[in-house]
Amino acid sequence: MSHSKLNRALAGSVALAALLAFSAAAGAAETKTHAPDAGKDGGTTNTYVPQLDNMPAEVAPKPEDAFQLTADELAEGKKIFFERCAGCHGVLRKGATGPNLEPERTHELGMDHVKAFITYGSPAGMPNWGTSGELTETQVDIMARYVMNDPPQPPEWGMDKMKESWEVLVKPEDRPTKQMNKLPLDDLFAVTLRDAGEVALINGKTHKIEQIVPTGYAVHISRMSASGRYVYTIGRDGRIDMIDLWPAEPTKVASIKIGLEARSVETSKMKGWEDKLAIAGAYWPPQYVIMDGATLEPQKIVSTRGMLYDEQTFHPEPRVASILASHYNPEFIVNVKETGKVILVDYSDLKNLKTVEIEAERFLHDGGLDSTGRYFLVAANARNTIAVIDTKDRNLAALVEVGTTPHPGRGANFVHPKFGPVWATSHLGDETISMIGTDPEGHPDHAWKVVDTISGQGGGSLFIKTHPNSKNLWVDTPLNSDAELYQSVAVFDTQDFSKGYEVLPIAEWADLGEGAKRVVQPEYNKAGDEVWFSVWNGKEQKSAIVVVDDKTRTLKQVIKDDRLITPTGKFNTYNTQHDVY
Amino acid sequence: MSHSKLNRALAGSVALAALLAFSAAAGAAETKTHAPDAGKDGGTTNTYVPQLDNMPAEVAPKPEDAFQLTADELAEGKKIFFERCAGCHGVLRKGATGPNLEPERTHELGMDHVKAFITYGSPAGMPNWGTSGELTETQVDIMARYVMNDPPQPPEWGMDKMKESWEVLVKPEDRPTKQMNKLPLDDLFAVTLRDAGEVALINGKTHKIEQIVPTGYAVHISRMSASGRYVYTIGRDGRIDMIDLWPAEPTKVASIKIGLEARSVETSKMKGWEDKLAIAGAYWPPQYVIMDGATLEPQKIVSTRGMLYDEQTFHPEPRVASILASHYNPEFIVNVKETGKVILVDYSDLKNLKTVEIEAERFLHDGGLDSTGRYFLVAANARNTIAVIDTKDRNLAALVEVGTTPHPGRGANFVHPKFGPVWATSHLGDETISMIGTDPEGHPDHAWKVVDTISGQGGGSLFIKTHPNSKNLWVDTPLNSDAELYQSVAVFDTQDFSKGYEVLPIAEWADLGEGAKRVVQPEYNKAGDEVWFSVWNGKEQKSAIVVVDDKTRTLKQVIKDDRLITPTGKFNTYNTQHDVY
Repeated sequence: MSHSKLNRALAGSVALAALLAFSAAAGAAETKTHAPDAGKDGGTTNTYVPQLDNMPAEVAPKPEDAFQLTADELAEGKKIFFERCAGCHGVLRKGATGPNLEPERTHELGMDHVKAFITYGSPAGMPNWGTSGELTETQVDIMARYVMNDPPQPPEWGMDKMKESWEVLVKPEDRPTKQMNKLPLDDLFAVTLRDAGEVALINGKTHKIEQIVPTGYAVHISRMSASGRYVYTIGRDGRIDMIDLWPAEPTKVASIKIGLEARSVETSKMKGWEDKLAIAGAYWPPQYVIMDGATLEPQKIVSTRGMLYDEQTFHPEPRVASILASHYNPEFIVNVKETGKVILVDYSDLKNLKTVEIEAERFLHDGGLDSTGRYFLVAANARNTIAVIDTKDRNLAALVEVGTTPHPGRGANFVHPKFGPVWATSHLGDETISMIGTDPEGHPDHAWKVVDTISGQGGGSLFIKTHPNSKNLWVDTPLNSDAELYQSVAVFDTQDFSKGYEVLPIAEWADLGEGAKRVVQPEYNKAGDEVWFSVWNGKEQKSAIVVVDDKTRTLKQVIKDDRLITPTGKFNTYNTQHDVY
Repeated sequence: MSHSKLNRALAGSVALAALLAFSAAAGAAETKTHAPDAGKDGGTTNTYVPQLDNMPAEVAPKPEDAFQLTADELAEGKKIFFERCAGCHGVLRKGATGPNLEPERTHELGMDHVKAFITYGSPAGMPNWGTSGELTETQVDIMARYVMNDPPQPPEWGMDKMKESWEVLVKPEDRPTKQMNKLPLDDLFAVTLRDAGEVALINGKTHKIEQIVPTGYAVHISRMSASGRYVYTIGRDGRIDMIDLWPAEPTKVASIKIGLEARSVETSKMKGWEDKLAIAGAYWPPQYVIMDGATLEPQKIVSTRGMLYDEQTFHPEPRVASILASHYNPEFIVNVKETGKVILVDYSDLKNLKTVEIEAERFLHDGGLDSTGRYFLVAANARNTIAVIDTKDRNLAALVEVGTTPHPGRGANFVHPKFGPVWATSHLGDETISMIGTDPEGHPDHAWKVVDTISGQGGGSLFIKTHPNSKNLWVDTPLNSDAELYQSVAVFDTQDFSKGYEVLPIAEWADLGEGAKRVVQPEYNKAGDEVWFSVWNGKEQKSAIVVVDDKTRTLKQVIKDDRLITPTGKFNTYNTQHDVY
């Protein structure tokens, strides 16, 4: 079934916007379609802020008694704001993907307007929390009053708190010295079971669920140690769990909470540093921490609070988005969202910490390496831009304007028949796929330019994927509002884009019964001959993993199991370990 | 007159402590004797701090009505706190040289205790603001209530504010292309006239006052551009003024306010970067800014907010103390007081900013280079430690424990007859002078150790000085409580310390009539055959500069002039330009 109908992006649809609030899977909770202006205005206020200590349990009253909250209401407001709102607006409500919600602005909007906003949502990306039934009328009222008051600042989370939370469950000396099981450790899939707070380890050869590991809440990503022995997961709640794959049964060996909210974890990959260190980035407090790779013992915490790269005014909450390990230097690539800075952190000497702080673009999100591993391409999504970082020369190679709200995941590398090596991203905000030339040596005229743009099924895409052994380019659309789109996936031939795309009805193949059944995140096996999709349903409904034969684009197997609750992100051990994408 | 009586440090004396509050001259406002414990406890609290915006003009009320302030009282409290208290306690009152004064602690102390503290001072270094007459009874009451309330956070001062404050008075293209006067530009003294908000330029050959330049309040230091053409001054109020020495009359050509409170300015000195850039560090907001060297146009602002180097908990107010330019790399050496970090800032590419953040020791203050220019020795004064930074290899070479509260200024380099090249510091908190070996190649056994300790007149020393062409080591004691000591200076023979020290009655020589007449800061002329002292008196009293013949240690001239109001720091152009000390 080949399509060439375009632009089903449904820009401006409240219905679509409402759905976006559920996109915490695979880390998109903070990305929205159609909110670039909000993003541009966000995070730049710089007002006089008296700090009032010793008022832990309440927000200081405003003159308007109508906005006051009881202690119970405040507690509920804080919880709801953290779970539903902070991803887009920031805990201090300075704004990022969503607009600023400080009292100055909310008072201007007025109570009725704010309540209507929360209840009905907006075309700009605000979910309809009330009419969707996610929040009761009382909760809407609490939230409206909550944002009329000054944002309570969450506590800091320094070394003292990290150390308190840190647990080594199996000491390094008590771990096996060789692999004690028969699992294909280089071809496992670590699958986030979002609402269960677990990760499933699924065998890439047999498709069997080998282990279910309890983890933090809504694991955002799983990353491998350089050797492929350890899996590190990070929950939205800032909890890192470290799984050793060598025992008879894969086992959690260490755990730590590195902040109150987090998205990213990575491990040292430079030659000589394999398995030595791990790093994690927090949303709150805005900081990153470097840990011992064998035990997760925290070693060095660095705050990201600082200046917006362009306006050079202070931002109190520059959140750490994605982190990647460089292959060219003993460095981590740390992407700071609000301030628009990419920080190269040299981990070879933590007491004399070398960093390079690269001015990139605001609202950095995630990205991946080009096929050579030298260049890192990262989405500044509310600015519709891809920033290209040269990890060898340690500077900004280019800023490339793409479509609306790019969300590449790690992107897709392939050789374009006309333009040579490219890296591609799909978009949340439109149906296009942008391809950027990545070969300044062989194809200098095309380097760091959008050389080709094609149209997929529609907007609301989170992930795009190919594999060096494949000629297929897979593009999901889980956040589109059209069930036909969010329950299917489009696949292109990278060697002939004129053929358009084929649509595979993945959710239909899964045959799960009722539910939204969003199809999310294509992920290849090690060989590159299978591509796996999550069919993500409600917590009380049935979900599944659908395995597709890459060559024939036909169903190979549906993995169903009662334990597969809300599967979202999947991370193949080999491909994650070696940055294959 | 040779002395060998020792230890007149008067440790624990309230009288001494009271005087320390007036030590803002040459930047010692925040250093105190005898407060190491307070310093150690300072700055580590990490509590839940709700931020209340939109309350710019008042402190939110506490339950206890007795602590409330009217708007007028709050304004007065803020002003007094900024001028008298913030240097030691920090604007957020987390504590540094002085102890923490957040409400949690002040409420524990209680209103009566706090008022008594402010009125009578304490042996630990708190001045007797009440009994000294500096504050009225009403003001003491206001200040006691002020510290019972939460500290209001001063506004940020980002690029927007800096640009608003920035003035180019004479554009570079309108400036002369060669020196248009006959002044010995390499032998001028830029003399801070503290309470006048001016700098005097005094001819090092003729001792004539050539120019009085209006500047910021209480200029902390003057620094030269690498070429020796420009003088940069920084006031405590964060104002930088840039003086061009080439016109017929030296002229202020640019000005900018880089923060609300500041201490340090420096210029790029690496080959190829002469006169290109300037840098300044602020106390509030905690940040540094790199500017164009010709116009002071601000280019890059970097926040220093971050983690304490040792406990790795967040500090909201890590103030920038001294800054020095490296001769080995295109780098500035930025010393961050509260967090105890020395940051090497590579200024060769501001858009891809390379820094090395070196863990040193908390409460960094000032320091200087060793005789080779490779090592930077900086006092962590509340920790009784000198940190040694290798500016070539970019790391911490050593931490050296010295006497109580070292205050080296830039220190003194000379060749010790027994131990080879050393760098010396005197102390605020005791009468000793510590000499540290600085020659790891030639004298590896002595490198980064205190190789010799001698005793001077007493504690309360701010500056120590010698010159490559001299065998004299001068040690002032302006903050001692004994008039005999603070009105005189001790001088040692660097080639024979067994002779003890000679005392020169500098204030007596100046013959000024009434007043405290504190003798502060020895400074050499270019040739190294004269040493100048400020005799610093009250604003309404007569002050002077006393010029001593270095070889004979006899009076050469007293520079008196009605315009010489409260002279404190003096900076010889050549010695400052070339780091000769």
